[in-house]
Formats: sequence, structure tokens, C-alpha cells
Amino acid sequence: MSISRLIEKIKKTGNPTVFGLDPRPEHVPEGIRRKNYALYGNTLKAEAQSFFDFNRGLIDGLCDILPGVKPQSAYYEMLGPDGAVSLRDTICYAKEKGLYVIADVKRNDIGSTAEAYAEAYLGSVTVNGAQYEPYGADSMTVNPYLGSDGIEPFLKKCRERDRSIFVLVKTSNPSSGEFQNKTFEGKALYELVAEKLSEWGKSAPGGGAYSNVGAVIGATYPEEQKRLRAMLPDTYFLVPGYGAQGAGASDVVNAFHEDGLGAVVVSARAIMCAWKKTGKNGDDYIEAARAEALSMKKQIETALAVF
Amino acid sequence: MSISRLIEKIKKTGNPTVFGLDPRPEHVPEGIRRKNYALYGNTLKAEAQSFFDFNRGLIDGLCDILPGVKPQSAYYEMLGPDGAVSLRDTICYAKEKGLYVIADVKRNDIGSTAEAYAEAYLGSVTVNGAQYEPYGADSMTVNPYLGSDGIEPFLKKCRERDRSIFVLVKTSNPSSGEFQNKTFEGKALYELVAEKLSEWGKSAPGGGAYSNVGAVIGATYPEEQKRLRAMLPDTYFLVPGYGAQGAGASDVVNAFHEDGLGAVVVSARAIMCAWKKTGKNGDDYIEAARAEALSMKKQIETALAVF
Repeated sequence: MSISRLIEKIKKTGNPTVFGLDPRPEHVPEGIRRKNYALYGNTLKAEAQSFFDFNRGLIDGLCDILPGVKPQSAYYEMLGPDGAVSLRDTICYAKEKGLYVIADVKRNDIGSTAEAYAEAYLGSVTVNGAQYEPYGADSMTVNPYLGSDGIEPFLKKCRERDRSIFVLVKTSNPSSGEFQNKTFEGKALYELVAEKLSEWGKSAPGGGAYSNVGAVIGATYPEEQKRLRAMLPDTYFLVPGYGAQGAGASDVVNAFHEDGLGAVVVSARAIMCAWKKTGKNGDDYIEAARAEALSMKKQIETALAVF
Repeated sequence: MSISRLIEKIKKTGNPTVFGLDPRPEHVPEGIRRKNYALYGNTLKAEAQSFFDFNRGLIDGLCDILPGVKPQSAYYEMLGPDGAVSLRDTICYAKEKGLYVIADVKRNDIGSTAEAYAEAYLGSVTVNGAQYEPYGADSMTVNPYLGSDGIEPFLKKCRERDRSIFVLVKTSNPSSGEFQNKTFEGKALYELVAEKLSEWGKSAPGGGAYSNVGAVIGATYPEEQKRLRAMLPDTYFLVPGYGAQGAGASDVVNAFHEDGLGAVVVSARAIMCAWKKTGKNGDDYIEAARAEALSMKKQIETALAVF
């Protein structure tokens, strides 16, 4: 689905945040995991099934108050092919429940290979006449280091199948400036990427004010966010780094336009692990996550109202 | 396995090339595919099984004349979770046959997530006491855009489990210069990445003259190759772009040291699709691939002898 569907859902829920489905075994309540060890033994399959069960609970409990989810592929890949099943099933279930799904895979490669990645996450594959969507996400994250011909296959899927991508511009991690903030002929690398992104966006309109080419801009760098907001008026921002990485509501306001649109903030660990703070055994993980998500919504509302 | 194991195998086979296992349905002879459609229907599982059968034939036919393989993850991901099974089985079978396995995944993320990727491809995972290697590769490719803290988890695996990584420095695609060749205080971005890579390598020695942190340098850019060879004397180079992407043997000599070590060239489509040039139906794909691999070996030998 195009970015305009994400925006619709943001308006409907009044909530500009997506929740990260980044499970690790220690994030999943023991009850869920014990059940699956009993069913499947101490196997990767058991762990992968626990991830899915955990995600399904969160999706059921949060789908009416949040517009979308961002599963982080790394945590599923860590469980081998069983993890891939869990990721695919999670994406499928989230879509069934009306959530916009951004596969956080940060893929990148030369053109012919990028095409395969685009087919995997945003496209479809034909097997002797039968058609399948391998992962079937609405959107995915992409790394820009290889330049335009590594991006073009993803743009093509945005155009042909009305999907969106989010390109890494300024990432949330401490050493993101090592290359991204180096200045080349008067402009930081992240600004050069932003300029190209703006061109890419023109070739993949999103059906409204925003293009289908979004940008990943870390919540941990509010100054860069401000500069990029001005440079990229028609670009939706995906803003990770809220919560566990140290950024709060006041750090994300620069990513938004004055109408409260233009950005979607990510929260993963704070929501997933909210149950660890209630002093119970995790049976309350859905309610704890919902309470945390509502509290985050309020924090961002308050911060946005100020400016 | 550390980079020194790859070097051992290169010396033993007298062949500084790895073959890319980058199957697409159209690369696989119809006999193999028809058999699997009959067994599994027109499903992603059938296609994924065909990829594995095809790869197994190539591995059996080439394992005595080549030191390693480089499966390109994108082509497996295109088949969803069934593709993940095929990738894992391919890696496992290639290792059984004594080949060094470089998983070409170009992963990258913030530290905590990069850790999960490192565990997936180079590490192991414990499930309630039982240990598994999710994909079990010897080496993987990594994208540097996020800087040092996105690389550190991979270095840790290199140190702890004696594995290697290859970091993208100057990629082989036409638009790689768009960002990689931008100049910062007289140095191109790819040179800045190379300088950091040199530091990263110091923290992950490879048990011999080379560190466990290699560099991806496209065969299509011989000038940059030359400069990087001088900058990174202790770094092994992985050189894609030979054959289908247009580079020939004379374009890769700059990547090598005078003793014929220092680089490993990749050939994928030329070897995989050699059967398409014999005028037969593909039943000869293993012999055709072997003939092509031996011819490539001779071309590189001749080119290296010149300098």
C-alpha cells in the first residue's frame, strides 16, 4: 500500500507512531515460550512460534490504536528459516488486522540483485503460472550506499504496486555521523542522500502530498531532523530511536509539519517489554503494551501541541 | 572460518575465484524444475528445492577446483521462507564439501540489531539450552553506512568465532560513484570507509598476513582498486563484477598483490548459465560450469602472470 494509506491510518487513530516488532527470546513472556518448547522441543521452530504468538497478541491488543508495525528482520533471521516463517506470518497477520507494515530490512545491492529484494518484500513471484507474495509488506527500509541504480528497482515496485520505501538518511545510532555527517563540497553526506531521495520521490508519487519514498531520520538527532524537514517537505519521515535509544517526545517534534503529519515515530522495546515493569509474570503483556502505547501517544500529542 | 582458511583453499586449488550461487528460476535447467513441480506443485517450495538441487550439482562439480562460494541472499529471499531453507541448506552442503562460504547479505543496522544479524550468519543461538547455527556461514558482506557501532558486532563474531566479513567499500554498479566517490577534504567517501576498515581490521586479525575484515571492491573500477590496494595492504579484497557485469581478467589484476594473493574474484552468471551456450537442454550444466570455471581460472592466471 502507498504512503497515503499509512497517512489515512495515522489520521484515523490520531497516532503518528508505529510499533516495532523486534522480539528477542528474553522479551517474550515465559508462559508463551514454555508452551512452545513443550510442543516443538528446544528448537528454533519453538522460538519462532513464540515470536509469532507474542506478536499476534500485541497486534490484537494494539491494532485499534496504532496505524502500523515495523518488524525488524534481524531478530527473525536470527532463528534461521523458522524465523523467516515467523516474519512472513507476522506481516500477514498485521495486514489482516488493518495495520500498515514496514519491513525493516535495510536491504541494498546492485540493480539486478536489488530487483530480487524488491520482489521479495514488495512484489510477487510467479512459479510456473502460480503467483505468490513472498513476504508481502506494504513498505520496506533501504540503504542508499550504492546510489541510484541500487534504488531504482524499489522505486519501480512503488510505482507498479503502490508500495513505499524508507531510505536511510540520518540513522539513530551513536556513530551515524562517522560517514553521514562528513562534509563533501559543503554538504553533509546525509544531505547529499536527501537531495537524491527528493529526486527518487518525484518518480514515485504517493497519491497525495507525500511521495512513496520516505526517509529514516533518527530521533536522536533533532538538529539534522530540522534541517531535513526543511529540505524534504514532501517526504514522510520514519523516526526510530524513541524510548530505549534515549530520545523523548520533545526530540521528535522537528520531524513533523505543523499539521501534525510528515513523520511516524517508532517505539519497539518500550512497548514490547512494558510487561517487565508491572511486576507480574508477563501474562499481562498485552495490557501493559497498550498502556505504554497510549502513554506514548499522549506524550507525542503534548509535544506536538506546543509548537 | 577465518580468512586464513580461505587463503589456504586458494593456494590449494591455485584459484583465486569464488563462484556466486545466485539462482533465478530461468538459470535452472528445466529438467530439475519440472521434477520439483511434479513433487511439490507450482509452489515456492518447489522452486526453492530446485535452487538447492541446482546448487548441489554445481558444488559437487566445482568443489575440487574452486576455494569457495558466495550465495546471494536476495535470490533466496525472493522465495520467502522456503528460500531461506534453500539458502541454509546450500551453505551447509558447501561447507561439507570443503568450500569457504561467504553469505552475500550486505546487512547493516544499529548496534543491537547488527548483533542479531551477526548471530544469524556467523554466530549461534541458544534455545533453552540447545545450540544452533542459524545459517552457519564462514563470512558475510556488510554495508558501512551506519559507521563503527554498526560494524562492531560483526567484528566481535570475527574475534570470538574466527569468522570474516567483507565490508562494501567501492561497489561494482554503474552509480556506485554517486556517493562513494564524493570528495571530503581531498578524500573520497570510499577512501574514508577504507581508512575505518583498516582500523576495524586491526581489532580482528585473521591469523596470518591478512585481517578478518575484507573489502568489497568492484572489478569494474580498476583505478579505485589500485588506490585501495595501496591503502589496505593487509585487507583481502572480494571482487565482484567479473563476467556479466563487464569486467575481464585484466580489470582485476590491480586487486592482487604481486604474490597472487590479496583478492578473490567472483563469477556468478557466467558459471551458472554456462549450459545455455552449449545448445543442449541443461543436462550438461555441471560440465559446462566446470569448463567455464577452468577457463576463467586460466584467464586470471594469464593476467596475473603479466604483472
